[in-house]
Amino acid sequence: MREVYVVGIGITAFSRLEYPLVEIAGYPAMMALQDAGLSEVDHVYVANMGASRLNKQTGLASAVVDHLSLTPAGAETIENGPASGASALKQGYMAVASGLHDTVLVTGAERMRAANNLETTDFVATLTHPLAEYVYGVTLPSLAGMFTRLYMDKYGVTPRHLSMVAVKAHANAMLNAFAHLHEPITMDGIQDGPDAATNNPMVSDPLRFYDCCPVSDGGACLILATAEIARKLGKPLVRLAGVGQATDTHAVHDRKDPTELPAVRGAAQKAFRMAGVKPSEVDVAELHDAFTILEIAESEEVGFFKKGEGHEALEKGLTRLGGELPINTSGGLKAKGHPVGATGVGQAHEIVLQLRGEAQKRQVAGARTGFTCNFGGFGNNVVCLVFQREG
Amino acid sequence: MREVYVVGIGITAFSRLEYPLVEIAGYPAMMALQDAGLSEVDHVYVANMGASRLNKQTGLASAVVDHLSLTPAGAETIENGPASGASALKQGYMAVASGLHDTVLVTGAERMRAANNLETTDFVATLTHPLAEYVYGVTLPSLAGMFTRLYMDKYGVTPRHLSMVAVKAHANAMLNAFAHLHEPITMDGIQDGPDAATNNPMVSDPLRFYDCCPVSDGGACLILATAEIARKLGKPLVRLAGVGQATDTHAVHDRKDPTELPAVRGAAQKAFRMAGVKPSEVDVAELHDAFTILEIAESEEVGFFKKGEGHEALEKGLTRLGGELPINTSGGLKAKGHPVGATGVGQAHEIVLQLRGEAQKRQVAGARTGFTCNFGGFGNNVVCLVFQREG
Repeated sequence: MREVYVVGIGITAFSRLEYPLVEIAGYPAMMALQDAGLSEVDHVYVANMGASRLNKQTGLASAVVDHLSLTPAGAETIENGPASGASALKQGYMAVASGLHDTVLVTGAERMRAANNLETTDFVATLTHPLAEYVYGVTLPSLAGMFTRLYMDKYGVTPRHLSMVAVKAHANAMLNAFAHLHEPITMDGIQDGPDAATNNPMVSDPLRFYDCCPVSDGGACLILATAEIARKLGKPLVRLAGVGQATDTHAVHDRKDPTELPAVRGAAQKAFRMAGVKPSEVDVAELHDAFTILEIAESEEVGFFKKGEGHEALEKGLTRLGGELPINTSGGLKAKGHPVGATGVGQAHEIVLQLRGEAQKRQVAGARTGFTCNFGGFGNNVVCLVFQREG
Repeated sequence: MREVYVVGIGITAFSRLEYPLVEIAGYPAMMALQDAGLSEVDHVYVANMGASRLNKQTGLASAVVDHLSLTPAGAETIENGPASGASALKQGYMAVASGLHDTVLVTGAERMRAANNLETTDFVATLTHPLAEYVYGVTLPSLAGMFTRLYMDKYGVTPRHLSMVAVKAHANAMLNAFAHLHEPITMDGIQDGPDAATNNPMVSDPLRFYDCCPVSDGGACLILATAEIARKLGKPLVRLAGVGQATDTHAVHDRKDPTELPAVRGAAQKAFRMAGVKPSEVDVAELHDAFTILEIAESEEVGFFKKGEGHEALEKGLTRLGGELPINTSGGLKAKGHPVGATGVGQAHEIVLQLRGEAQKRQVAGARTGFTCNFGGFGNNVVCLVFQREG
């Protein structure tokens, strides 16, 4: 198996974007080609979830490869719900590792805000089990609400802990020009003060407005290549060292204990084992906080903290910038935004920035090992990645 | 790079199927697991194009892996328009070749007939260039009609040649219980006789009804594995020996000569080079005859016949069962059917049957080398595969 390196990165603002999907995929790819110093690649993957339904476009990868003048390179669209991005990076890893391709461009793109809110909510809900959940009106916020309630009962997590995740995420996003939400929030404003209930209304009990990520358009790109090419291109050497994936029951109610996320645990263990890295060696991580509770739960399942102790680590400040293990320095899905198909590539983009030492005001000093967790469905298909700085 | 073998195969009827998409993906997978003698695999790919739009389902791969009780195996959906199937097989190839996974199940599935005709036609048309073709009402039959007219003018192909493709396809499909159309047709009935114009009305001039494939539901599956596992399982050894892919301009009018299909040529050349096989060594082939003209044009571009001579080879009977190089023994897309995301896996299924000597009444005697061409968009993203029998 050949080693695989990140040789170029690019990203759009995560926001409401008023240009076509092919350009949301294309701009970060052009940035990444420029960053790498490449004008062609052997293969292209596009991570996307909603093009057919929300943008009436199929064969998106073929449109993107033509738009970028990268023909005759082959191209596919990879869909794994909100974990499409990390899944596409996994395909890119295999394409290089197998020896079939030497340079692979992986661009994630989503244009969700072109559709109306009802359409978008229904679209995201189609991720649930079609016969056991979707037909009964289950949505992702409803599953997250029930999960949060169980987690509170079992582990003593409180609404204040949830708000701490949000406040941290918004503070980090203030340091990221590409983030969707540039709105500093405080514990007083969303949790403790007299106007908190008005400022932060209930969405899916016990989850309030600031516990839920925004609906974002956006794109992000990584170019992967062999060690030989990476050395020749001369960028700081960041290796994609570990790739892990695991699935769980599609319907949440089929799980023995819904507060357990075995697919997160399994994917993380595989990625760490492959990289030969322990969770305690990670310097910076991006976790999939589509809802605030998920950052807490994932920080436990991936092995950073013991089960049930994630909220305590958060409360102690271990996961904020300057803490022992900064989590979601980009602002996370919560404040950087969540263009579903692009999110996993966006997470990896942040980690590569950090490992290159290019994260500016949010730089984690001396970061050498980074980790991402991209969470598909409601934990039914999870992909974790480990990146390492060399040289 | 590790060698990759086919250790299990399965297929549904291509037809109108009245069961959920997850089962259309699931049944052929169960057949393939049974055929291989496996009860678990390391990874699952689902090839699909229309789930989100036509069946209101995303994260299909996660549903399939759970439906088959194959968790915690990872899973993704691969979309490359009508070439999704071969693209998914390419991912499977890389997953095994790279060393990341030892056994990979690739199932293609599509349920198109659940939607009404207008919706389906629009859905397929979303494959065209969104800004340069789709918005002007371009559909796949309209592109194929214009392509056919140019081909007739340049190479002397006549409507009789098109009908010969259809008659051959329907005759082969009569020998395939899983084919969509079991309707023997004759040159008299659709071309030469007094009722031909009524029996075979114009669809997209010069393409008539019997020049166009049906809209099908259906699924097909292959399981890929390492040489070591293939030998242990004891099935006839069929190796996936060559994988080639190439893209072309997304909009057909951007091509210097629209009668040329450089993506077909490029994909075939790469697949043959990788396998170390010449086109003249192929014993049986499945080409992507969504429209009759495409079988003729592809038979030239992949290197079986000289450019402009495919229709002559057809007329001489070289490509029928018993000829020198039987093409589309399954009935092809034209008569076996075209469940878009599943088609490429279905083509490979037929080739594996032939190389194992299990194709019954349509068996090509002594077939050792087989070839598939899976054509995405209107020739903008093509994947070709070479299979070889060993032992």
